[in-house]
Amino acid sequence: MKTYINEIKENDNVDSFFLVNEKTSGVTKTGNIYFKLKLSDRSGEMEGRIWTFAEKLASSFERDDFVHLKGKAALFQERLQLNIASIEKVPEAAILFSDFFPMTENDPDHMFQTLLEISRQVKNQHLSRLLGLFWEDEPFVQKFKMAPASKRLHHTYLGGLLEHTLSVARLVPEIACHYDGLNLDLLLAGSILHDLGKVDELSYHRAFDYSDEGRLIGHIILGIERVQAKIDLLPDFPRDLSTLLKHLLLSHHGQYIWGSPKRPMTLEAVVLHYLDDMDAKINGIKQFLKTQVSEGSRWSAYHREFDQFFYVPDYQDNMQAIDNIKQNGQKEQ
Amino acid sequence: MKTYINEIKENDNVDSFFLVNEKTSGVTKTGNIYFKLKLSDRSGEMEGRIWTFAEKLASSFERDDFVHLKGKAALFQERLQLNIASIEKVPEAAILFSDFFPMTENDPDHMFQTLLEISRQVKNQHLSRLLGLFWEDEPFVQKFKMAPASKRLHHTYLGGLLEHTLSVARLVPEIACHYDGLNLDLLLAGSILHDLGKVDELSYHRAFDYSDEGRLIGHIILGIERVQAKIDLLPDFPRDLSTLLKHLLLSHHGQYIWGSPKRPMTLEAVVLHYLDDMDAKINGIKQFLKTQVSEGSRWSAYHREFDQFFYVPDYQDNMQAIDNIKQNGQKEQ
Amino acid sequence: MKTYINEIKENDNVDSFFLVNEKTSGVTKTGNIYFKLKLSDRSGEMEGRIWTFAEKLASSFERDDFVHLKGKAALFQERLQLNIASIEKVPEAAILFSDFFPMTENDPDHMFQTLLEISRQVKNQHLSRLLGLFWEDEPFVQKFKMAPASKRLHHTYLGGLLEHTLSVARLVPEIACHYDGLNLDLLLAGSILHDLGKVDELSYHRAFDYSDEGRLIGHIILGIERVQAKIDLLPDFPRDLSTLLKHLLLSHHGQYIWGSPKRPMTLEAVVLHYLDDMDAKINGIKQFLKTQVSEGSRWSAYHREFDQFFYVPDYQDNMQAIDNIKQNGQKEQ
Amino acid sequence: MKTYINEIKENDNVDSFFLVNEKTSGVTKTGNIYFKLKLSDRSGEMEGRIWTFAEKLASSFERDDFVHLKGKAALFQERLQLNIASIEKVPEAAILFSDFFPMTENDPDHMFQTLLEISRQVKNQHLSRLLGLFWEDEPFVQKFKMAPASKRLHHTYLGGLLEHTLSVARLVPEIACHYDGLNLDLLLAGSILHDLGKVDELSYHRAFDYSDEGRLIGHIILGIERVQAKIDLLPDFPRDLSTLLKHLLLSHHGQYIWGSPKRPMTLEAVVLHYLDDMDAKINGIKQFLKTQVSEGSRWSAYHREFDQFFYVPDYQDNMQAIDNIKQNGQKEQ
Amino acid sequence: MKTYINEIKENDNVDSFFLVNEKTSGVTKTGNIYFKLKLSDRSGEMEGRIWTFAEKLASSFERDDFVHLKGKAALFQERLQLNIASIEKVPEAAILFSDFFPMTENDPDHMFQTLLEISRQVKNQHLSRLLGLFWEDEPFVQKFKMAPASKRLHHTYLGGLLEHTLSVARLVPEIACHYDGLNLDLLLAGSILHDLGKVDELSYHRAFDYSDEGRLIGHIILGIERVQAKIDLLPDFPRDLSTLLKHLLLSHHGQYIWGSPKRPMTLEAVVLHYLDDMDAKINGIKQFLKTQVSEGSRWSAYHREFDQFFYVPDYQDNMQAIDNIKQNGQKEQ
Amino acid sequence: MKTYINEIKENDNVDSFFLVNEKTSGVTKTGNIYFKLKLSDRSGEMEGRIWTFAEKLASSFERDDFVHLKGKAALFQERLQLNIASIEKVPEAAILFSDFFPMTENDPDHMFQTLLEISRQVKNQHLSRLLGLFWEDEPFVQKFKMAPASKRLHHTYLGGLLEHTLSVARLVPEIACHYDGLNLDLLLAGSILHDLGKVDELSYHRAFDYSDEGRLIGHIILGIERVQAKIDLLPDFPRDLSTLLKHLLLSHHGQYIWGSPKRPMTLEAVVLHYLDDMDAKINGIKQFLKTQVSEGSRWSAYHREFDQFFYVPDYQDNMQAIDNIKQNGQKEQ
Repeated sequence: MKTYINEIKENDNVDSFFLVNEKTSGVTKTGNIYFKLKLSDRSGEMEGRIWTFAEKLASSFERDDFVHLKGKAALFQERLQLNIASIEKVPEAAILFSDFFPMTENDPDHMFQTLLEISRQVKNQHLSRLLGLFWEDEPFVQKFKMAPASKRLHHTYLGGLLEHTLSVARLVPEIACHYDGLNLDLLLAGSILHDLGKVDELSYHRAFDYSDEGRLIGHIILGIERVQAKIDLLPDFPRDLSTLLKHLLLSHHGQYIWGSPKRPMTLEAVVLHYLDDMDAKINGIKQFLKTQVSEGSRWSAYHREFDQFFYVPDYQDNMQAIDNIKQNGQKEQ
Repeated sequence: MKTYINEIKENDNVDSFFLVNEKTSGVTKTGNIYFKLKLSDRSGEMEGRIWTFAEKLASSFERDDFVHLKGKAALFQERLQLNIASIEKVPEAAILFSDFFPMTENDPDHMFQTLLEISRQVKNQHLSRLLGLFWEDEPFVQKFKMAPASKRLHHTYLGGLLEHTLSVARLVPEIACHYDGLNLDLLLAGSILHDLGKVDELSYHRAFDYSDEGRLIGHIILGIERVQAKIDLLPDFPRDLSTLLKHLLLSHHGQYIWGSPKRPMTLEAVVLHYLDDMDAKINGIKQFLKTQVSEGSRWSAYHREFDQFFYVPDYQDNMQAIDNIKQNGQKEQ
Repeated sequence: MKTYINEIKENDNVDSFFLVNEKTSGVTKTGNIYFKLKLSDRSGEMEGRIWTFAEKLASSFERDDFVHLKGKAALFQERLQLNIASIEKVPEAAILFSDFFPMTENDPDHMFQTLLEISRQVKNQHLSRLLGLFWEDEPFVQKFKMAPASKRLHHTYLGGLLEHTLSVARLVPEIACHYDGLNLDLLLAGSILHDLGKVDELSYHRAFDYSDEGRLIGHIILGIERVQAKIDLLPDFPRDLSTLLKHLLLSHHGQYIWGSPKRPMTLEAVVLHYLDDMDAKINGIKQFLKTQVSEGSRWSAYHREFDQFFYVPDYQDNMQAIDNIKQNGQKEQ
Repeated sequence: MKTYINEIKENDNVDSFFLVNEKTSGVTKTGNIYFKLKLSDRSGEMEGRIWTFAEKLASSFERDDFVHLKGKAALFQERLQLNIASIEKVPEAAILFSDFFPMTENDPDHMFQTLLEISRQVKNQHLSRLLGLFWEDEPFVQKFKMAPASKRLHHTYLGGLLEHTLSVARLVPEIACHYDGLNLDLLLAGSILHDLGKVDELSYHRAFDYSDEGRLIGHIILGIERVQAKIDLLPDFPRDLSTLLKHLLLSHHGQYIWGSPKRPMTLEAVVLHYLDDMDAKINGIKQFLKTQVSEGSRWSAYHREFDQFFYVPDYQDNMQAIDNIKQNGQKEQ
Repeated sequence: MKTYINEIKENDNVDSFFLVNEKTSGVTKTGNIYFKLKLSDRSGEMEGRIWTFAEKLASSFERDDFVHLKGKAALFQERLQLNIASIEKVPEAAILFSDFFPMTENDPDHMFQTLLEISRQVKNQHLSRLLGLFWEDEPFVQKFKMAPASKRLHHTYLGGLLEHTLSVARLVPEIACHYDGLNLDLLLAGSILHDLGKVDELSYHRAFDYSDEGRLIGHIILGIERVQAKIDLLPDFPRDLSTLLKHLLLSHHGQYIWGSPKRPMTLEAVVLHYLDDMDAKINGIKQFLKTQVSEGSRWSAYHREFDQFFYVPDYQDNMQAIDNIKQNGQKEQ
Repeated sequence: MKTYINEIKENDNVDSFFLVNEKTSGVTKTGNIYFKLKLSDRSGEMEGRIWTFAEKLASSFERDDFVHLKGKAALFQERLQLNIASIEKVPEAAILFSDFFPMTENDPDHMFQTLLEISRQVKNQHLSRLLGLFWEDEPFVQKFKMAPASKRLHHTYLGGLLEHTLSVARLVPEIACHYDGLNLDLLLAGSILHDLGKVDELSYHRAFDYSDEGRLIGHIILGIERVQAKIDLLPDFPRDLSTLLKHLLLSHHGQYIWGSPKRPMTLEAVVLHYLDDMDAKINGIKQFLKTQVSEGSRWSAYHREFDQFFYVPDYQDNMQAIDNIKQNGQKEQ
């Protein structure tokens, strides 16, 4: 079982998996070579040292490898470090990603099944086949289930892209019933595909960051390219339909200033923009509130991107029981 | 039965109700006094003339009165005008407002009943009592059922405020189930009350326009005042709850630049802003498309406030049957 | 030889080609059917009437057809109209586009040859082959030689896209020599391809306007799609190179607010943005000055998009001969 | 020969020139006065101490003086400091500015000669004489050859103003040949004089900073004043020409928001704005990339003023040889 | 005595002065030459015709001349025109400018005397002498007393510049007493000189419009040049004082976007900006309200530059006598 | 007498009042409980320790209490701390607020009397009575005399709100005399009440910060509520007058972006906005200059909110005596 870094105490014997973020060598006063490591898992970072057989042990792994190590925690200059007795590289398959990176609290496989069910509501044969091509594309599905939705703003954890996509897609039938005249098929397909370029925009195997393509091209256009590549496999896909679907992707940020090269010009595009924006904001604020409200305060820290503070009301204590707070779980009962 | 202005043809004998928008007198070449009227109903405007017994007939009504008149339509300088034989003022109670102003296509009484049902979902006693005070305030309810939601942008017809309020409030439970942690009671009360100041902001008895208070104070603050006046009647209404409710009203435009003196700082305020904005935009676009798409085109005219064009896809013809277009009616089955 | 509308005088006998912009029928006082036409060429518009054999003559052509007609010009209510004796549709091949639409003053074929020469300066094999695929694509080349560069702002005439592309591409080697460290091949290819999506964005066979794809997708993304489709034919085209080339297209407007989904992030992208913007502005201003400076004034009318006035100095008269004004022709000597 | 601060190691005997940035006195535990100095050159800063004959030695120089000193480097609290045995002020003439401040990599005298040659292309007698007056103004020329072009954004080194001016002026004939109708003389004179107010805006004898006049008046207006002062010496300089030339200076930032009190209203002003802006941006980015791209990365750090990241493609390795990268030197062959 | 155009009725014999705005010749059906004139005074415009001795009479004056004419008013195509029997040019000295252009309601000479008195409060010898140089400059004083302050926004009448300058300068001592630490001399001089460039920016001898210099250079810089030219005559004028004074002029618009190349950086500059802006806005609104509030309404028309409506409260009728409305005159008692 | 923290030196015996900002307990190496305090007054903060009878002494007070303590100052790890011998809570009434918080330099009672005198200039009975109700509201008056005007920008000290209000109100009669047509009563009442909501917006009993209501509702609306509550007590207060008065409060920030839900639409509202803004800016700049101009410099530090630097001219030394600097005191002589 994984021993988490934030649980390790002085004198603990540690035997667990870690990610090596840095690996540098030094020379002791007595002239011996040693290695300094920066080790991490999802709970934090700590220093490691290899003092004995240093060169031999260190030859078996590189920076950015996952390793299995044994060692003992000791205090050095008031900070804990691990003195490593044995260490070796392990393959990715041997570790649990969720031990190392923040991860959605929902089950990706379960979320994906729910998304497939929603996909089946699409009656239009062209759109239905298009979605099918994506679901049959195993490498894509693997990335789609694991990718975060964003580096900093919302759903910034493994599985976040799927969670966000599912959340938006689940709102679509409700909204399409609420307002008449909306094309449910187009809106469903658009909501499911709207952010798919993010599988290429963000790299998230060692840390969350933008890929070169992500920065130079961006997920909106990368998504368009993936959609077009699939449409190329469907020779009688109507050009008008393709244009409308692509318009949904191109305009879903709503404004030029937010990186959309087109503003929403159809009712479906207007709706998709609002659902995407609202879902991202709500998740982003909730994630922020989890860590950025200090003990005893009801005000969050300052949120730089949104340029404001947020307030967490105390519904229980101060206001004589406003009990009617919805928990997501209730819904599924 | 009402004869509509846009149906009147040359030589028709007309016997119906009209609104007098202008009333001025003149002198014929033969030295007799006559009266020129501008008459209107919801279908348009036309000129009227009183040639005989002019002073006597004209003494019975003023500008902005509704009148019952009999007369005959004649062409004068290529335009139709009504030569009036008899005319007299009628009280407002004798006419149907919907003959004279654009009106919601839904039944205001039915919409209001639905809103009352939604109100009953509010479990918090303070909020529930507050809503009750509004529903018991008969003059308010009358205005609330009749007011338009806006002069130009969305729901610009009698009953539009109620229609918009109901639409937003109906979305609230769905969204509150979709995202956990939202306070349903507060969000319901906020959605029901968010635009209530519009009953004072807009005058709509002879034409849609802003009242002096509407322009100088605005519906957001006018709404705050109405809410505070009711809260003053509820001595143990918690101050914190009042603050949170008023924050919903004050921040529902979302941005300073759109007239909100505060930006949304609670999750409920964020949600209310999105639902209000989305509902207004969708209605606004749909109203615009009804009149601003020319025959044979799929593009709308330029929409000045939104600074763009809109597109109406031809789902039937061009794309091999995307049939999955939702009609509002379906939902209620 | 073409008789231009703005040359026709009362009582002229006319025998020439025109474009039919409108065609509607009416009934004379004596009960006969006649046809009203709106005719145009590049010099203007005028009314036409078919009084005799109206139905038979009118059956041979439709709105938006080019026609050959004979008739006589007469004054009717102070405006000239053509009374048509014979009229028949002619195929596009029979007319000169430049008689009907504003056209570049340069020879498209000659400009295209120059652009081919510039293409040959591209040494990188991948980029060179990519350009080659475009030049071999005859339907594309036809459109590329004829398309305008914009509906309203700059190079708003047939051949304008090619003229603008050539002008930018000709500046590239000079700038690439001026600043060291720029990749000439990439910059040449980017400048040649930067606006190619405009062949799909604008329709210009009867009037200059945006196509549905043009408005919903936009020339930037349409261009990306055309480039990607060609790259798909070049299996070993390096992915990095593709990314950099596409970045040039995506960022050439320079700012989100001008519709670029990415801002320039490489030196080549920065340079391309400046050259494109400068070339468009200079051409736009010069076109504007041709018609928008009134006789005797040195100030232009107000330019709405640029929100300003322009000034045309009188170098000859007022300032004792600043003779050093460059004419484009001088360069080629 | 200069010993640079970043080359000094423990126990080195140092005998070289430095700039005194700070000079403060203290008292040792034994009651003796000593002096603490902050010394700098273009490679960095270090501390100095005068322990013996402190008052006498320190009386010979002040803060902001250049000094010649001898001393020995010693570690004190883990940082190197110089224990000074002898020190004396030296006149500016005795030092090389380029030892103390960042400096253009090009030879100022050579650049200035090239600029003089370009000046000679101006045929208009008035403009030619005006430029002549500047070149004959020796104090101006000295400042003009040494001034940086900006404190932070571009050409932020001694000689940067001349380098930027020359770069823009050299582009002028190429652009004036490319577009017809431009007044070459005016554009040349404008490009040469456009930033000349920077000789007064920036002080750069001890550190790069704005002068009081620079902040309160700004280089645009300071330049106008210098130009007007010279024009006052040319009694028949045409007023219209003066207006047009000053307009070039006043509008060369292009937008109000960038500090131009006028936007470009003539074609020459439009061109000068683009050339100035492009040249500044390219230089600014290239300077930034020199220090702000970390080892092993192709992405720059975040550039605050431009609010973005920049990318440095690896043309050699990743893309199978895009060899066609221009070096400035090639041009001059 | 002047006969005003808006007082002339059919068949009136007219004998008065007018300004000729247009003068064109035509040929009657009988082959005779006649002249069409557009005549104006401050009350409006009307057409004039010279039928007899047309060429001879018309040879004595040109467009933009003031003329003395005799004629008779007649209706032609429902509009009045003057049939002219005699007409001759008169010199400017023979007419009253205020008959032809809108003019301040205050006496320019009296206002100027008041400004001179305020000038005398300046104790600093340099600033006092500088102001003296302006007051001794007779051509300047003539222009300064007559110029309007703006073409469209505020004080848009002859004498408006002086009126605005005086109004701002009169507020200065009050504000300088209210806040301590302000330099009264500098603030007085700055307020008196802040807009003086407007004597060159606007041409106002035949119509209010911008001069070429006004548009290309602008009143802020034109004012700087006039101030510098006077300072050049005062050899010991301190450079620091000159910088501070010029900073007041350069920054008085307050923001880059309003055309100031510098924002206010001293307390005096901050104060001057507020006083200038407030005085211009109040005058601008009051001028607007004079013509743009329709009978029976308390709301103004839409003010385009300010993008809003204004409200004129009915203090007398509606609010039980708020009598405490100040009239300017009261103050001087 | 108060001993200020910044005056305490090693080994001083201290006997004075302090505010307890933090209170935490620890355990000594010998196992005894001790208490760590953070103590403050207006001069700064320092650490305190209770070593003996710790639990007993510490039981008598809490964090945020004012205390009277005796102890001795000692150095610990190079920082002074107080070893406390006795300590006990004291009531607020026993301390002088001005010992603990920054305070206006003017006497609040004297300022308040002056404001009352200004109030008496209001002749309108309704407005006069309204002001009277505020002055009779003792709890309000207490808060109004003590509140700061802002947390960071201007008048950020106890009594600042009153000082700012008085400063604006004193300018009103001068401005109302300067411009005719202004309603002095309305403007006086508006200026006196414009910021009164700040008594609820800011909490300032332990530190300056926003209250929950302050952040969620804001002082503009909080002020409206206080005004409305008083108007409710005046049954015949004219509704029009109430609207105009509230408009002054709602619009006094001038722009949406600065938090005003309405822009000024009456002349009085325009004037109030300028006076409020100017007074806040001048005070804010002067406060900033007091601490943010470093020795020997005439330039301030960078002011983040205003995004600029400020300059403090040296009127005495550099410019040969510009003596005419007004001191506030002069006025009152």
